[in-house]
Amino acid sequence: MTRTVLESKSKTVVIGFDEPFCVIGERINPTGRKKLAAELEAGNFSTVEKDALEQVACGAMVLDVNAGVVYNSNPNPNETEPPLMRKMIELVQGLVDTPLCIDSSVPGALQAGLEACQGRPLLNSVTGEEERLELVLPLVKKYNVPVVAISNDDTGISEDPDVRFEVAKKIVQRAADFGIPAHDIVVDPLVMPVGAMATAGRQVFTLVQRLREELGCNTTCGASNISFGLPHRHGINAAFLPMAIGAGMTSAIMNPVRQVEMEAIRAANFLMNHDANGGEWIRFSKVLEAVEGGMSFAEASSSQSAAASGRRGGRRARA
Amino acid sequence: MTRTVLESKSKTVVIGFDEPFCVIGERINPTGRKKLAAELEAGNFSTVEKDALEQVACGAMVLDVNAGVVYNSNPNPNETEPPLMRKMIELVQGLVDTPLCIDSSVPGALQAGLEACQGRPLLNSVTGEEERLELVLPLVKKYNVPVVAISNDDTGISEDPDVRFEVAKKIVQRAADFGIPAHDIVVDPLVMPVGAMATAGRQVFTLVQRLREELGCNTTCGASNISFGLPHRHGINAAFLPMAIGAGMTSAIMNPVRQVEMEAIRAANFLMNHDANGGEWIRFSKVLEAVEGGMSFAEASSSQSAAASGRRGGRRARA
Repeated sequence: MTRTVLESKSKTVVIGFDEPFCVIGERINPTGRKKLAAELEAGNFSTVEKDALEQVACGAMVLDVNAGVVYNSNPNPNETEPPLMRKMIELVQGLVDTPLCIDSSVPGALQAGLEACQGRPLLNSVTGEEERLELVLPLVKKYNVPVVAISNDDTGISEDPDVRFEVAKKIVQRAADFGIPAHDIVVDPLVMPVGAMATAGRQVFTLVQRLREELGCNTTCGASNISFGLPHRHGINAAFLPMAIGAGMTSAIMNPVRQVEMEAIRAANFLMNHDANGGEWIRFSKVLEAVEGGMSFAEASSSQSAAASGRRGGRRARA
Repeated sequence: MTRTVLESKSKTVVIGFDEPFCVIGERINPTGRKKLAAELEAGNFSTVEKDALEQVACGAMVLDVNAGVVYNSNPNPNETEPPLMRKMIELVQGLVDTPLCIDSSVPGALQAGLEACQGRPLLNSVTGEEERLELVLPLVKKYNVPVVAISNDDTGISEDPDVRFEVAKKIVQRAADFGIPAHDIVVDPLVMPVGAMATAGRQVFTLVQRLREELGCNTTCGASNISFGLPHRHGINAAFLPMAIGAGMTSAIMNPVRQVEMEAIRAANFLMNHDANGGEWIRFSKVLEAVEGGMSFAEASSSQSAAASGRRGGRRARA
């Protein structure tokens, strides 16, 4: 059974065929978040702090950290991103004890992230592009970390799922040349918007099964892409995630502060027999009750997780 | 590709591997509905009428009609159920033009239903019990209708999914002896509550795939059974249905007046490429908007479907 082991300072998270679905929180990312980008340039990290705490309370098991901001004061990300990545990682791992996912297209930022990270982070990402393979795989090997492999290459993103499979296979083979095992490659088969490509859902379900059976790889995806451009997209996401989980997908990079998606994932974990005695579902149902009582999902989740730590603390104190 | 063809007076519904998921409305059933049972004994059919219209407006493609009421005035269902079944079927098919599913454990009621039904109804059900096979299969053959086959037999309901598969196989083989083809057998693999049996979800997903690949059969289930006894059960149902659809399930007997379940099914249809251009999803999103505006799901669905008929009428009038 394939297991991809991630670590924070003191916690281990396993992405695996026999594990609950791994939710990788996507919020700490200034790309497309102008307000957050401006805050970061001004040295204000309050949103990052809030996003870290809130995502973990809502059920993120790993936090993606992306420092892809273009400063008005310095438009060269090769200069600005590495120190910002380091700063954000230090900040986040000071606040939460959760493995991180170092997310950048700037090699220097990946390197800076790897240096700053405690434990065993996930590196995000390598593609099938030759230049990228040659830059990223040595880092993966040197730091002995798992890596997200996105199935596009120098020819771009193919609409043909067989081509995307072959790109993934090439990355796994190339990684093997470096001595990196398949269980440390988490493949992103690329989710297309179903509104633009009617076969997008079925493509991913089939690809995930093949990646699992033929390459022995764990998988991930940018889940919300499936519903891009559609009305009531959270309804699409909340059906997509259980279907992908049923097909064998083992993680997603997504927003854990959305109730419907998290409810769908927790129910799917239960239905996949990855929630012993439904304990997680029953705990989660208390959060849903608090939401029905008028709280926001983030508030209800934070309050539930604070109560849980309080209870644990209490027991320790009595011991 | 397996296709089970159902007909009302003038409409055809196909349950099939390449069709949208077939929602069979379960509401017209006095079992466990004391108020409805009392109404029926008193000759009051207003709830049946309301349930027929509401379920169709909400998206039921087939209506299950069950007359399994025990009268205080006459406790013998062999006497009371056949005429009640006939009456209910005549009433329902006078109101809605939707294929019906004749649901009874009383052979006389199945016969009465078959006589009263226009078109090609689904007969619900036969089991692997010898007596039941000998009683029901001749009716299936005589009236040339498809039948729901529930995978229990004289030994009861097995917890072993392999045994349940073998029972289904036996029913399909026995039906073949009568000249009834596999595409007219819709197998119910029996959904166990996941709260009582942790493997219940995975069992069904595996069974559905086997029934489809090895027997070429369509499938159905009493979907809500999966969440029996659990808190926030609609969240479980709304993940179960897309997962079952992804595994190849083609219909369910369920309550179509529940928004979360219907939203999950419509999204799953879209993701399975059974909703060309997302037209159904976009139409459904108008219903969701009306619900957000304060309407009940049934009201919003009825209002949307009335508007749609009105528009069609309008176009016809102008033609």
